[in-house]
Amino acid sequence: MSDALHSQDWAWRARAKAVLPNGMYGHLSTQMLPEAYPQFFSRAEGAMIWDVDGVGYIDYMCAFGPNLFGYGDREIDDAYIAQLRVGDVMTGPSPHLVRLAEAMVDQVSHAEWALFCKNGTDATTAAVMAARAATGRRVILRAHGSYHGTSPWCTPVPAGTTEAERGHQIWFDYNDVESLRAAATEAGNDLAAIIGTPVNQHAFLKQQLPTADYARAARAICDASGAMLITDEVRSGFRVVADGIWDDLGAPPDLSAWGKAIANGHCISVVLGGARARYGIESVFVTGSFWFASAPMAAGLVVMERIKEGGYLKTITETGNRLRTGLDEVAARHGVGFEQSGPVTMPLMTFTDDPDFRAGFFWCAEMLKEGVYLHPWHNMFLNTAMTDEHIEITLKAADKAFAALNAARLTLGPNERLLAAAANR
Amino acid sequence: MSDALHSQDWAWRARAKAVLPNGMYGHLSTQMLPEAYPQFFSRAEGAMIWDVDGVGYIDYMCAFGPNLFGYGDREIDDAYIAQLRVGDVMTGPSPHLVRLAEAMVDQVSHAEWALFCKNGTDATTAAVMAARAATGRRVILRAHGSYHGTSPWCTPVPAGTTEAERGHQIWFDYNDVESLRAAATEAGNDLAAIIGTPVNQHAFLKQQLPTADYARAARAICDASGAMLITDEVRSGFRVVADGIWDDLGAPPDLSAWGKAIANGHCISVVLGGARARYGIESVFVTGSFWFASAPMAAGLVVMERIKEGGYLKTITETGNRLRTGLDEVAARHGVGFEQSGPVTMPLMTFTDDPDFRAGFFWCAEMLKEGVYLHPWHNMFLNTAMTDEHIEITLKAADKAFAALNAARLTLGPNERLLAAAANR
Repeated sequence: MSDALHSQDWAWRARAKAVLPNGMYGHLSTQMLPEAYPQFFSRAEGAMIWDVDGVGYIDYMCAFGPNLFGYGDREIDDAYIAQLRVGDVMTGPSPHLVRLAEAMVDQVSHAEWALFCKNGTDATTAAVMAARAATGRRVILRAHGSYHGTSPWCTPVPAGTTEAERGHQIWFDYNDVESLRAAATEAGNDLAAIIGTPVNQHAFLKQQLPTADYARAARAICDASGAMLITDEVRSGFRVVADGIWDDLGAPPDLSAWGKAIANGHCISVVLGGARARYGIESVFVTGSFWFASAPMAAGLVVMERIKEGGYLKTITETGNRLRTGLDEVAARHGVGFEQSGPVTMPLMTFTDDPDFRAGFFWCAEMLKEGVYLHPWHNMFLNTAMTDEHIEITLKAADKAFAALNAARLTLGPNERLLAAAANR
Repeated sequence: MSDALHSQDWAWRARAKAVLPNGMYGHLSTQMLPEAYPQFFSRAEGAMIWDVDGVGYIDYMCAFGPNLFGYGDREIDDAYIAQLRVGDVMTGPSPHLVRLAEAMVDQVSHAEWALFCKNGTDATTAAVMAARAATGRRVILRAHGSYHGTSPWCTPVPAGTTEAERGHQIWFDYNDVESLRAAATEAGNDLAAIIGTPVNQHAFLKQQLPTADYARAARAICDASGAMLITDEVRSGFRVVADGIWDDLGAPPDLSAWGKAIANGHCISVVLGGARARYGIESVFVTGSFWFASAPMAAGLVVMERIKEGGYLKTITETGNRLRTGLDEVAARHGVGFEQSGPVTMPLMTFTDDPDFRAGFFWCAEMLKEGVYLHPWHNMFLNTAMTDEHIEITLKAADKAFAALNAARLTLGPNERLLAAAANR
């Protein structure tokens, strides 16, 4: 699609090809998205992003999560900038380190302490290390398909890792108590931790919400065995409840990993934990050059005030309900087998009988033409800057896109983009 | 030292004790520094930091490296803020990603591509993964005592890691070609990479500059065996030369890790590499929620302009020479066995016959009283905001501190702070 409409995007891609691995790396690469998706963006504000060719989109990816209160939220960014002018990365922390730890401990039921870091991976890895240190054991239980970052122990692509680094892990089926118990039995006396995924958001598969039985079984196994229960809230944190999701289910974890939205896009993540994990976290040595930066903490303090106030959750939930109900109605009107899974604030949209996502890719490309940026196989995110008007535009776009899909469906071929990506793996 | 002068600091420590692991975690903890060292800071500007009790210090730690052009550099921070207002963490990168990659490739001789991340550890870990992916081999050679971050494979404290995660590594002695060759022989056909440390800055030991023979031997072993040469420039990058240090020695690496100073304290790190490592880096999957943030890249672009211009290096080198010569003169006048090692822009200051650092701790505590923040066992850093006046103040302080040390030396007992810290490990 090196057409005139995207000439700037293609010019940047050409330059990028020379100096970036694969022309672009990581989860923001459009390699596995419809060809029309722009790679480079020039601006973001509220619910909107604009690509380098000046085309604007309602952005349902929210930077894959960080944007909870809208891009460029003035109050949050002003707090960041004010602290940047006073002191950000210094030879020691500012009191904001303590204030933000207190705010998070106050907000999240199972939390008694906080350890701030930068990446979601920093937090999940530190939590695993704390669990191993606390128990003196090695084995970690993980649900099939759950993503926990890109450290050698957890990156979804094993290239460049050793078998040894990825050892001492046993997989089980999400929401399947028997499978979880069997994995715990297999781990035996070496069980260090169960990593609970608050919402199972495996790329390419429908999302699964946890059952209370499953979450409580994980808690019970950890209580009985002395293992640590870890929840990875990096993606889900504060988008479903204003607390830990498993706290709400009666299965409070010993350790939890958070990131993305906790400072509305400013770079900070955190491990939270309770008394049972304190010895573990106090035993490990983890740190980073920028982990004590005060400006993101200042932004995080504003975010935590809003989380505490709670109105934001009502806002995104209502927006999510309108979007879900509206899209279902439009899809039904067109007779399309359209499926939405996961929390309404983190929707995944897929099509029935669409194993290679050819319908999803076509529909998303049509939506993009109408100024709506969706993802065909990854969960999306809502933010508080999304209004009724954004939903209206989205539903009108969907009406056109479902019609176009119906007209084209029988002619759609195999999804060449995904096939090529799969061949490269 | 819960005295009146530090009442705010102690109040914050008390609050921190409740909500932070060990009351403070990571490399900015003052647990292994003289008791008088403040833990919490309220402000930073240019060469100075102020603690929460309002006491100011000339800061020779520079946030352990990130501060190269002075705290709060207006032009760099303005570039950050301007980009933050336009778009920082978005659903895709901005062109700044490409611009900064081009600027770094232009500046660093061995670099043909760049992969930006957040922590120094992200960069060293990705480099190791790329080397393993490129070669299909596992063993990494590392110099004794060299620090490369806090991922399970490299954290200096093994608590919470498995033996397996820390496997496939062989240690050698820095600057010792025979030791390096023996390690390579031991690795045999499984040699994936040698990690070269541009300046060996082992905590508690004198710094060692690399010899050209040693660096070239590492390059030759990699050439002969097909292994990758990695340099860890996270601490040393752009503080000794305006290029890779081993490029300058005729031993260009295949991969290098950079962080800390590359955006003058804004959160960004990078893996740079050449053609030989391109397949490797293109094979691995590494990413992070905030890795494509544009605001730190905007700051990095200003930094790279200054690196290219080059005057900064003359400035910090002249300042470093004045400091080193001056301190040596003052120490000689007092007849103190005072030792300075490493580049003048990253000095380490220790005392002869001071195995438990009792003299170093006493002297640094005396310097702190005079408003000079030094570190008794970790290398320090210079920045361009340090002036003749700062050096004058430092030398006057040293005059008093050496005199006080001479008066007190025979009465100094064992270093209780370090003994306690060692006992906790």
